[in-house]
Amino acid sequence: MSSGSPLLADLIEALRCLPGVGGKSAQRMAFHLLERERERGLKLADTLHEAMQRIGHCTRCRNFSEEPMCTICSNASRDRHLLCVVESPVDLAAIEQATGYRGQYFVLMGRLSPLDGLGPQELGLDLLSERLGEGEIEEMILATNPTVEGEATAHYLAQLARAAGIKPTRLAHGVPLGGELEYVDRGTLAHAFGSRLSVD
Amino acid sequence: MSSGSPLLADLIEALRCLPGVGGKSAQRMAFHLLERERERGLKLADTLHEAMQRIGHCTRCRNFSEEPMCTICSNASRDRHLLCVVESPVDLAAIEQATGYRGQYFVLMGRLSPLDGLGPQELGLDLLSERLGEGEIEEMILATNPTVEGEATAHYLAQLARAAGIKPTRLAHGVPLGGELEYVDRGTLAHAFGSRLSVD
Ligand SMILES: [Zn+2]
Ligand SMILES: [Zn+2]
Repeated sequence: MSSGSPLLADLIEALRCLPGVGGKSAQRMAFHLLERERERGLKLADTLHEAMQRIGHCTRCRNFSEEPMCTICSNASRDRHLLCVVESPVDLAAIEQATGYRGQYFVLMGRLSPLDGLGPQELGLDLLSERLGEGEIEEMILATNPTVEGEATAHYLAQLARAAGIKPTRLAHGVPLGGELEYVDRGTLAHAFGSRLSVD
Repeated sequence: MSSGSPLLADLIEALRCLPGVGGKSAQRMAFHLLERERERGLKLADTLHEAMQRIGHCTRCRNFSEEPMCTICSNASRDRHLLCVVESPVDLAAIEQATGYRGQYFVLMGRLSPLDGLGPQELGLDLLSERLGEGEIEEMILATNPTVEGEATAHYLAQLARAAGIKPTRLAHGVPLGGELEYVDRGTLAHAFGSRLSVD
């Protein structure tokens, strides 16, 4: 097969590095940009180039940042007594979007997983310990994912917090709001049932 | 909401120029590239930049091309007696992928649509007439879309072909292979019924 343009074929192939984009949608994207969105396509190319080259990690919280310190860490109006620990920048973004949280973050960029070679050092826990030792933080919110590895990581972090005299807290588990009991997985339902609260 | 990185926010916004990509998938794409595919992301940025700047239209068939003549027009091994006219490069790509067609193309980059200001001039029909006058083409395959405007365009092109002594042909319509009659639209079914062929 030929599209008549080797450069167009290269573009279609390159677009497939995007998650969830197969050959058919890569082709549709390429034609769409060429036919109707040259300006925005060029803007995307330049922003993507800059992002891939300049975005590194915040030296304080390990979040993505193009500056030595991310805009959350360098925002003086955020609460310096609260630290929320997440596995990845996606989780940080989800919390920022969904909640009114105004404290600080620490991004592990992973979870404890000895089989994958991910130990305390790879997760930057030395940096985290240093941070806990500064004496500003009063509560550490453990927002790792509710998976086996995420729970093990939270358990480890809770010990770190306690050793530094900081109160560790964990996100509440239970039946999702608006979820029907019928469709909630058994583990979640059992947990929610066991943790039932009294109604006044 | 803040991601901690203004450049990351710009990237997420820029990714939304891709068709079918909303805020949520743009975010997923940006994180995926930053976390796991920096090299391929950079390659995409550079290919996209080059494509947006260099890809224009073939001077002979109006297909996308970064060179004055596309690789189909400049391929001496393709049959110069057959010319297939399509509305857009997507249609050309579909025919190249699905059929064994080895002739030439002409890409209208649209269809006759007086209300949208698309007349014979906008579709490059002067270029097409010139081509028909060269005397090489024997058959002109009208592969415009089976829409009202596509059919009207095909009708107009058939007259051009006949005036130049060239045989116009049209793609066959009918029940799609593997399609169940129950799910075929009424217009197609009526046409297929009316155009029924004798079985030997
Ligand atoms: Zn930071
Ligand atoms: Zn061409």
